[in-house]
Amino acid sequence: MKNLLVAQSGGPSAAINATLCGVIEKGLSDKNIDKVYGAQNGIMGILAERIIELNSLLSDPQSLQLLCQTPSSALGSCRMKLSPWEESAFEFEKIISVFRKYHIGYFIYIGGNDSMDTVQKLATYCRLHNINDICIMGAPKTIDNDLMETDHCPGFGSAAKYIATTFSEIACDCNVYALPAVTIVEVMGRDAGWLTASSVLGRINGGAAPDLIYVCEKPFSVDRFLEDVRDKLAEKHAVIVAVSEGIKNENGEYITECLQNRTTDAFGHKILAGAARFLEEVVRQEIGCKVRSVELNLMQRCASHVASAADIYESRLLGMAAADYAITGETGKMAVIKRISTKPYRFEIGFVEIEKIANKVKTIPLDWINQEGNDVTQEMIEYLFPLIQGELPCTYENGVPVHFRIPTAK
Amino acid sequence: MKNLLVAQSGGPSAAINATLCGVIEKGLSDKNIDKVYGAQNGIMGILAERIIELNSLLSDPQSLQLLCQTPSSALGSCRMKLSPWEESAFEFEKIISVFRKYHIGYFIYIGGNDSMDTVQKLATYCRLHNINDICIMGAPKTIDNDLMETDHCPGFGSAAKYIATTFSEIACDCNVYALPAVTIVEVMGRDAGWLTASSVLGRINGGAAPDLIYVCEKPFSVDRFLEDVRDKLAEKHAVIVAVSEGIKNENGEYITECLQNRTTDAFGHKILAGAARFLEEVVRQEIGCKVRSVELNLMQRCASHVASAADIYESRLLGMAAADYAITGETGKMAVIKRISTKPYRFEIGFVEIEKIANKVKTIPLDWINQEGNDVTQEMIEYLFPLIQGELPCTYENGVPVHFRIPTAK
Repeated sequence: MKNLLVAQSGGPSAAINATLCGVIEKGLSDKNIDKVYGAQNGIMGILAERIIELNSLLSDPQSLQLLCQTPSSALGSCRMKLSPWEESAFEFEKIISVFRKYHIGYFIYIGGNDSMDTVQKLATYCRLHNINDICIMGAPKTIDNDLMETDHCPGFGSAAKYIATTFSEIACDCNVYALPAVTIVEVMGRDAGWLTASSVLGRINGGAAPDLIYVCEKPFSVDRFLEDVRDKLAEKHAVIVAVSEGIKNENGEYITECLQNRTTDAFGHKILAGAARFLEEVVRQEIGCKVRSVELNLMQRCASHVASAADIYESRLLGMAAADYAITGETGKMAVIKRISTKPYRFEIGFVEIEKIANKVKTIPLDWINQEGNDVTQEMIEYLFPLIQGELPCTYENGVPVHFRIPTAK
Repeated sequence: MKNLLVAQSGGPSAAINATLCGVIEKGLSDKNIDKVYGAQNGIMGILAERIIELNSLLSDPQSLQLLCQTPSSALGSCRMKLSPWEESAFEFEKIISVFRKYHIGYFIYIGGNDSMDTVQKLATYCRLHNINDICIMGAPKTIDNDLMETDHCPGFGSAAKYIATTFSEIACDCNVYALPAVTIVEVMGRDAGWLTASSVLGRINGGAAPDLIYVCEKPFSVDRFLEDVRDKLAEKHAVIVAVSEGIKNENGEYITECLQNRTTDAFGHKILAGAARFLEEVVRQEIGCKVRSVELNLMQRCASHVASAADIYESRLLGMAAADYAITGETGKMAVIKRISTKPYRFEIGFVEIEKIANKVKTIPLDWINQEGNDVTQEMIEYLFPLIQGELPCTYENGVPVHFRIPTAK
């Protein structure tokens, strides 16, 4: 019997622990697996041999349920990329030696496109060195929803549900005064605008926000933005704007950089800030009405109390599937979600060669953005809709959600 | 039979509509009341005669339940203060004429300390002009929790629950990397630190945040702050700080002003920003580790999907009580919560002369802040604890909470 090792990598999300849960459940229930180990802080934890046994920690259903409602990576994370093995063979040798020491036959790495680079390099190293008894599989994770080959990514649906909920609440908040006011809300995403696009679901129950949506896939023009805001202010007093942190001008420069020269505050200071803060200052100077900026910041990736049931369910399934594929001998692949139909929503789990995924970014199809570049289309709404469906019971104690903590390895 | 008029004023909260709901329920059920009217945008809506009948709009339990889970002021709000009546008698005459036109015998104004100024002035005007058939009562509302004479304020408990929940989630988020990092979270409150103090409940289930809490009642020293952060970094890698937007130095100047000279970014630009953003830059320059700032911004006052059941219940009761007192002839008073005991938590509703409340601010007792000025005491925790207890079922449709919308008056 072999053991299974799991680790988490990259930025936190509300669903990455559900995928961990799926891996553990498969490991606990499969007759081919003896022990399930977790490496702390991703690949760094393997190199440093910070390995803990998870069987005993997480064998009861209550702990697994709490793990699923715990945001961020319970095993810790890292942002480390392995160098090509020709340059740092010692790292690969160390990893394999740790695998040997713990009798690891299966390694599941949960993460985004950088983490899939690690899966690719490790699988390639094993193949080139005739290490055929260790299978390495990736399980996707990223709120950014920018992994290739999978319909969508675990963590994205919960972040999208938080964003839609928050826009619907902010719409109520901003509509109370009978004065012209602009609220600019910055959403995460430097290279892909999926999260910003999901703000459109804030309107789904008739909510008034967002009025304008700017994703980073189309060049952003400050003049057109000002025109859009003026047009909206002519229709209504409270205008709410969703904007990707990564909006860029026609030359591909981040708007926050190219605006440095344009935007100075009342005292002539230049302002160092994000996209929304910049646009706040632009509106203040060029339109002159009440204006404020809001960053959804860490909350959009860790608000597990309002997680999407669909997302948590699929994330868990992907974890199970990644472990299952590894156990059946697959290596150098990532588990993916394939959408079979949108109405009704149906999907299946599959797997794809890691080369097609590692280090690549999936952006929004340009025809899912409207002609004017200030909103998204019906196709986008239909794509997003199933991903935020369903609410989960969240266990509270003392008025605050309960989270599961894995003790730190020595 | 007389009619009852209700209006909302001041900043939004997750509970102000529960108080509105309580007023309406009392109005619908009391045999002395014919119609319940709402004025839109507070006292401004009375002056502009933007009055709508609420009986038909809100007579079914489902609508009232949706109203209670709708953040912000469903009737709209305003920030208008009446001038002394000697200077603007026409405004008072206009208000009374609108009251007469709609046969208003009872006016309930839901709001904070500025709104209670309106209650005081209107009640005084009526008394001085022998208008004895109109009773004017205040119902408290403010997430800031800074109204005198009431143990706490409707809206505060829900904001505190959001803050505690968010700190517990941010703690999970920030603890994933094995690197020293400081996260500074700015909480609302320019004059009173109650909301910032409520972050302490993020630790109640064993959570790791916040590590340091700075409220605006004690002078803030940047040097002591840096020392505190360095001390914490010596113990743990992820340090999370809660800070009031209104922290001031020993001379009573907002830290954001007095720091303008000290904090310049890498390019020598001065930075225009809030307290957390300033302190972020200070940590970056003086300590040099990874640092980020987060503003809880609008979300802390409108996140009704995670409202406190205790808060919504009490807010509704206060609305009922304010209407009840008005109907029994009380005027120029505000309904208040009196805490009878903390363990077990028991309270009763009473009312207090408006003069004791209007334009005053209740700050944190200094002995509820620790000696070092970087945390709160056990008394504070015990005071806060009952206010965030309980979760409410929230009605979602299409994956997003449903909100109630009152149509706009012509």
